[in-house]
Amino acid sequence: MPHLIEISYEITPEQGTDIKRLSREIALEQTVEVPDDVVVDPVIRDNVVGRTLDITPLGGVPARYRVVIGYSPEVTGYQLPQFLNVLFGNISLKTNIRIVDFQLPEIFFRHFPGPKVGVDGLRQWLGVYNRPLAATALKPMGSSPQTLAEQAGAFALGGGDIIKDDHGLADQSFCPFEERVSRCQEAVTQANAVTGSVTLYFPNVVGEPEQVVRQVEFALSAGVRGILVSPLLVGPGLVSFLSRKYPLAIMAHPAFTGTHFHDRRHGMTPAVLLGKVFRLLGADISVFPNSGGRFGFTPEECSDLAAALRSPWENRRVAWPAPAGGMQLSRIGDMAVQYGPDTVLLVGGALQQAAAGITEGIRTFLQAIEQQFPEQRPDTGRFTPSDALPRSRT
Amino acid sequence: MPHLIEISYEITPEQGTDIKRLSREIALEQTVEVPDDVVVDPVIRDNVVGRTLDITPLGGVPARYRVVIGYSPEVTGYQLPQFLNVLFGNISLKTNIRIVDFQLPEIFFRHFPGPKVGVDGLRQWLGVYNRPLAATALKPMGSSPQTLAEQAGAFALGGGDIIKDDHGLADQSFCPFEERVSRCQEAVTQANAVTGSVTLYFPNVVGEPEQVVRQVEFALSAGVRGILVSPLLVGPGLVSFLSRKYPLAIMAHPAFTGTHFHDRRHGMTPAVLLGKVFRLLGADISVFPNSGGRFGFTPEECSDLAAALRSPWENRRVAWPAPAGGMQLSRIGDMAVQYGPDTVLLVGGALQQAAAGITEGIRTFLQAIEQQFPEQRPDTGRFTPSDALPRSRT
Repeated sequence: MPHLIEISYEITPEQGTDIKRLSREIALEQTVEVPDDVVVDPVIRDNVVGRTLDITPLGGVPARYRVVIGYSPEVTGYQLPQFLNVLFGNISLKTNIRIVDFQLPEIFFRHFPGPKVGVDGLRQWLGVYNRPLAATALKPMGSSPQTLAEQAGAFALGGGDIIKDDHGLADQSFCPFEERVSRCQEAVTQANAVTGSVTLYFPNVVGEPEQVVRQVEFALSAGVRGILVSPLLVGPGLVSFLSRKYPLAIMAHPAFTGTHFHDRRHGMTPAVLLGKVFRLLGADISVFPNSGGRFGFTPEECSDLAAALRSPWENRRVAWPAPAGGMQLSRIGDMAVQYGPDTVLLVGGALQQAAAGITEGIRTFLQAIEQQFPEQRPDTGRFTPSDALPRSRT
Repeated sequence: MPHLIEISYEITPEQGTDIKRLSREIALEQTVEVPDDVVVDPVIRDNVVGRTLDITPLGGVPARYRVVIGYSPEVTGYQLPQFLNVLFGNISLKTNIRIVDFQLPEIFFRHFPGPKVGVDGLRQWLGVYNRPLAATALKPMGSSPQTLAEQAGAFALGGGDIIKDDHGLADQSFCPFEERVSRCQEAVTQANAVTGSVTLYFPNVVGEPEQVVRQVEFALSAGVRGILVSPLLVGPGLVSFLSRKYPLAIMAHPAFTGTHFHDRRHGMTPAVLLGKVFRLLGADISVFPNSGGRFGFTPEECSDLAAALRSPWENRRVAWPAPAGGMQLSRIGDMAVQYGPDTVLLVGGALQQAAAGITEGIRTFLQAIEQQFPEQRPDTGRFTPSDALPRSRT
């Protein structure tokens, strides 16, 4: 366990650049923002300016390097926005610097509890063990609350685990937030009473902070136990706050993050941003564009991201990867094997196209999962919904 | 004035792509998130899915296109995070799509008052007309509140217009926010009493929303009239909220925005993100890395950005461009000519290196400006500070 925040960069400098000097410039840029010779105070030189810990040539043409710089955790003020600033604030405006990993000291973790529900908590709520979860999205934008509630009910009757809003559902005149959430949660609750199992509904929250807090509190009062939220749209610090304050599962959406991944020489890797950063701010589930869908992540990027969400990390809870983005029902079996049981499999539009309807579509979806992972109940005996729900809401 | 939100994209598709089809895919992705044939409801097809308004080939190899898609303003819920989602949420995860402009319908503007102080307001507060403003930054991170207050006082004695915190100054143990703000504002107030002119101090606010609101309210109570804030770190919706709610000038910092500008085929242009979006969320001043400094903006990108902040825009106030990022005193005369009078010229580290000290350094800075723009008092007679300050704080 380091006593510094150790940030690992992959750098592709212009030819002729002195990598040691460039590393020092990054350490200065992310802290004191002055040239080296202006930093005369020895305490600042030693304790505030980042310190180059390692430089490893990676070869290649043009040559790449892996650089590790250590920063005092004090410079972050132990809060997420300033941590992101130290991670990639000013150097985002530079070129060819990619954040490929970071390690945190124990003192830093004290301020970041991480996922509140995580894999174990959500399994308990759902009473589903040893298989991936089946999730879908309410859509399309423009549908009335009633139409979406019908979808939600049909999905829940089919036995799906999680139904989330499309992340573009806001508080629009054609589908007001409160009406949508009331109706959808009600439809899901009614379906749960019929099936005897638990489907959870995660409405999307989006807006200015006060608006989001109102949405969350309304959703909780309507019986909702999880939300969908896009940290880079509403602000990562707000999500961190929501995670600490409310008894909610948080499904994080990658909207507005994509410029980090376009040029693989610059930005953060998916594993860093959608994995470690989102887990740090409390995401219980991190949605990402699976390889082979409508977006361009590679299979390796996807498995690194899943590993970042699930690896042991100073007692933080393990979070769920949720590969998504144009997934077809025909791929579900393979995806279940590829990602393993602790995965939320998210099929959106394709379910709506299921010829036999949503309820049958979700049954097909679940069968494809259960073929790979025959359901196993835990030793505690037959599951009843009341066991799966937390005792208290506050 | 359009009745739709008209977003202009510059697209560099893979060879063989049907640009009309790709344009339709963007319009679907940013709204309904389902394939075209799933959208059966004619009301959703006509009023919710974006509509391709224009496709213009731009030539080049590989071929580029300018595409304009119109979206109903209703899909944004008239709030900034969802507007950014429609602008670049999911398609940020695609490749080779660059937002180069957007036009807004009148109904949208009703929800976004834009800069509250702007060029005219800040000139009134300062009593400075017809010349660029001289600004600097308190640094380096790691300095005590007392050291920073001495810097602030020395700068104000030299007659500078704005002194801002470095954007890395948070609420750190070695420099707590409240002590820093109290001491720096006090030093500036004392210097103002000596000089008889007005220097404004803009502390940096950063953190989760509640923390930022506490910082803003503390700063106001200490006599502060402006803040520095990084919208992409704290959340753009929070800044929009601060701008509407508090009687403050807002200086927006570009930290964490840089992945939009790294690959000029993908992201938003500086003029769109640091210009129009920041002006929309209420930035009175937008700081950006000037060409020829430590970062890579081109001269053309800088002048487009300045134009986006200053052009007439449905009665929104005009905002100040603040070229920065490693500017030397020797460049000030040229920059003043290049950018014209309605500019905040920001010199940070170089002032601290001024051999004769900060107070002399800022005098040199002002002389360089005044050589190009001899100061002209407005017709209202000799300026006194009480005229320049707003009558009421609430």
